[in-house]
Amino acid sequence: MSRIGVFGGMGPAATVDFMDKLVQLTPARRDQDHLPVIVASLPHVHDRSRAILGTGKDPLPQLLEGIDFLNRAEVGVIAIPCNSSHHWYREMSERSKVPILHIARACVAAIPREAAGKVAVLATQGALVSGFYQSALDERGIPYGVPDQDTQPFVNDCIRQIKAGDMKDGGESLGKALAVVKAQGATAVIMGCTEIPLAARYTDALGLHLMDSSLELARATVNYALERGWQRTGWDA
Amino acid sequence: MSRIGVFGGMGPAATVDFMDKLVQLTPARRDQDHLPVIVASLPHVHDRSRAILGTGKDPLPQLLEGIDFLNRAEVGVIAIPCNSSHHWYREMSERSKVPILHIARACVAAIPREAAGKVAVLATQGALVSGFYQSALDERGIPYGVPDQDTQPFVNDCIRQIKAGDMKDGGESLGKALAVVKAQGATAVIMGCTEIPLAARYTDALGLHLMDSSLELARATVNYALERGWQRTGWDA
Repeated sequence: MSRIGVFGGMGPAATVDFMDKLVQLTPARRDQDHLPVIVASLPHVHDRSRAILGTGKDPLPQLLEGIDFLNRAEVGVIAIPCNSSHHWYREMSERSKVPILHIARACVAAIPREAAGKVAVLATQGALVSGFYQSALDERGIPYGVPDQDTQPFVNDCIRQIKAGDMKDGGESLGKALAVVKAQGATAVIMGCTEIPLAARYTDALGLHLMDSSLELARATVNYALERGWQRTGWDA
Repeated sequence: MSRIGVFGGMGPAATVDFMDKLVQLTPARRDQDHLPVIVASLPHVHDRSRAILGTGKDPLPQLLEGIDFLNRAEVGVIAIPCNSSHHWYREMSERSKVPILHIARACVAAIPREAAGKVAVLATQGALVSGFYQSALDERGIPYGVPDQDTQPFVNDCIRQIKAGDMKDGGESLGKALAVVKAQGATAVIMGCTEIPLAARYTDALGLHLMDSSLELARATVNYALERGWQRTGWDA
């Protein structure tokens, strides 16, 4: 079916941000020019990062329920604006009848050559342990680093604060992380958790090239739909 | 089922704004505290206002498809962040197994007594011809007026500009309408089209008490869900 499926709720504010990006990226002058989207915002999925680190419940059965729901809803492609959940990308893709776009691959593919001096990956601890960003960067031959153990807590704080609705605090925590990775030689930063772009509105980029994983997934999703002519075909093409 | 259904896409930016309000209004410190939401953003529904005015195709079959979709998705309540579509509220409610919250009733119920001196209703021409805001205001005994024929075009412009993504122009058009209704004695304004609150960010309220129909529907929706304990019960209560 010619509509987009979004598996959201991880977290809910990041899902709203992702939907906003879908709307902004679609060339449209009236409602009927926009793309049809089905969103399952299911915030009760167990904490993805904790599960990867072995300190929380396995979210895979819930992730597969979300994928099944969107398949039953007859979407033609699925986007999941949550990086850490991509630890289970293979399992979800095998379950889904329709393609699932990979947020990290979309983000890494979008890094401009000139910004790829040294990339710092900011993400949940779980996502970094999972290593899907590192693999995607290795494939493109882009040098990268991850925050040291004194810096990762700033990233963790940022993500937790945004999920709690404390946007300015989140911006402050992100600012601390950015200052360190910049001092350590980063030229670009992957905001590899969909809460981080929300925090970035409240802090200075310090001249770093910030890559927004949510924006790149949205771009890949809109392009996927437009290339297949899903605009204006929802009801009575 | 203990989850919220949103029939959106009318328009898409207003739907994102409505979802943002759901998230903001939910008391939550982490993802798992939030409410599960299924959104059908189906922007191809024929123009509601034109249909009411007799100059466009009947959207009712599409509206019923959206209602059917959300019922199949096993939502427990439906919110439709589009005022004009409430012209067909009775037909949609009769089709739905679960309640549909009424945006205009939610908005009018929320008008504070002290603001209810004289209320101006800003909405699509179709919604004003349909008259559901006027009925809801009559029921509460609140005096109201609607824009005269020289002023309604500012409202129409505003709605069209927001749907086209021209936010500042939309704010300017809204500002013109607000100036006239204030000069004509309004003390409060119902933003009775879900695009109008987006325009209101770009203009001055001129001291008028602005009632946001989208916000009031979101409030009614979150309250409906919280009263029924839908928080944290999505997967494994």
